[in-house]
Amino acid sequence: MGSDETEKVRQLPIGVFDSGVGGLTVVREIMRQIPNERIIYFGDTARVPYGSKSRETVTKYARQIVRFLKSCHVKAIVIACNTASSFALDQIEQESDIPVLGVVKPGVKTAVAATKNKKIGVIATEGTISSQIYTKYIQAVHPEMEILGKACPLFVPLVEEGLLEDPVTDEIAERYLGGLKDLGIDTLILGCTHYPLIRGTIGRVMGESVTLVNPAYETALALKQLLDEQHLLCETKPGLGDNKYRFFVSDGADKFQHFANSIFKYGILSAKQINIEEY
Amino acid sequence: MGSDETEKVRQLPIGVFDSGVGGLTVVREIMRQIPNERIIYFGDTARVPYGSKSRETVTKYARQIVRFLKSCHVKAIVIACNTASSFALDQIEQESDIPVLGVVKPGVKTAVAATKNKKIGVIATEGTISSQIYTKYIQAVHPEMEILGKACPLFVPLVEEGLLEDPVTDEIAERYLGGLKDLGIDTLILGCTHYPLIRGTIGRVMGESVTLVNPAYETALALKQLLDEQHLLCETKPGLGDNKYRFFVSDGADKFQHFANSIFKYGILSAKQINIEEY
Repeated sequence: MGSDETEKVRQLPIGVFDSGVGGLTVVREIMRQIPNERIIYFGDTARVPYGSKSRETVTKYARQIVRFLKSCHVKAIVIACNTASSFALDQIEQESDIPVLGVVKPGVKTAVAATKNKKIGVIATEGTISSQIYTKYIQAVHPEMEILGKACPLFVPLVEEGLLEDPVTDEIAERYLGGLKDLGIDTLILGCTHYPLIRGTIGRVMGESVTLVNPAYETALALKQLLDEQHLLCETKPGLGDNKYRFFVSDGADKFQHFANSIFKYGILSAKQINIEEY
Repeated sequence: MGSDETEKVRQLPIGVFDSGVGGLTVVREIMRQIPNERIIYFGDTARVPYGSKSRETVTKYARQIVRFLKSCHVKAIVIACNTASSFALDQIEQESDIPVLGVVKPGVKTAVAATKNKKIGVIATEGTISSQIYTKYIQAVHPEMEILGKACPLFVPLVEEGLLEDPVTDEIAERYLGGLKDLGIDTLILGCTHYPLIRGTIGRVMGESVTLVNPAYETALALKQLLDEQHLLCETKPGLGDNKYRFFVSDGADKFQHFANSIFKYGILSAKQINIEEY
């Protein structure tokens, strides 16, 4: 590849996707850590949530989205959804000619470094918990560590409804997390990209002695390293009228935009609806 | 049509569909009221819930399901989902050469007959409430009646998670329904087929003076009348090995079967997964 062409590839966007709005927590971290990068986000709001659906169905959805993102000429893909990372990352990595990154491995790395008593909790969707992916990744390297998983199926609907600080969310968090707290974990992985949005609630229930791990932060860091290694980091700042961040959804673009604007500091200009089943 | 052919049509199944498990409350009523009828049920568990999705998306999903049901040679279709009835019934009726019935009109009929103080509450998904379909139907005939709608977006996830009798469901019901209670309604339409499954909780919160209307009951009655008028009622009892009730889903057949068996008195033998996006 000539240096002109390399420069062109460097300026291509990163594709990020999730089942809905949760992946925006990963987008937020990428924006912070590698601010030169262009991003194309896809939220599968027509089929959200993924967490209660099967491996087969989630993999099919993930493949359609990857085809859509590739049609947008992305240079790398981040699966910003734990369920899709758990079920589909390996397969999508194998099929892809560009780098693909999930959110599970980066989260594992931080949790292992953080724990002192070697008891790590993982909260996630039913799909992620039943896949036991966190346990497998951690125990492959640290068989002495105890991993305690808990599915929290109502957290995604609560977040998607915008009940980020709400007594109902507190009540449900108490019920989901009480058992984990009693078991004496000192580290808790927020194993679903929606959960950092109710980090305050989760932190209050678990108490100060438990370290909360947000895989979004580590994922953005891992992405930065990966792009750097492959000489894909964008070194020039995109111009103002450059449409740096673009958002696509499979349903409810207005509702998505409203939500996105409530969690980002600056306004996102628009979200566009596409028919994902066509990909 | 010759009488042999008429008899053949009478023995065809009724197609019933919903976004997930909620429509089983309608199936249950059809089984009770017209026990000779064969039923084919489809639950769109790969794309559940519908209530927070747009008119356009829900209509597209409903059309795919109608195509699937027609491929099974049904003699009539029941849209056992308030969101899909609100958004798509008119269009699907127009496009269909067999009778199509929704759940909204039958529910309206009972509520209007039940209210004494002419204040009717409607609880439903966001989609159904924002369509204002209950208000339109009731006020077209009874403009003096006051209709108070309230979206309860978390009820469907709670029911789909099986929390039918649970303090969390109580807590959320208190929050959703408190306002309606204070406004003095005497009749409450359970405007989502999932809600009869938490009828106990809703009844406790609203108190004995409020009549709860379950459109599933009236829908089965309206279906019976419609089939009778069109000489489509099945007059012979299907044989034992006849596969009278068949269940299809777009994801998680085992989970669906488990849920169905928890609400039906007898066991359902199997649920089969199909790829609904192909229709």
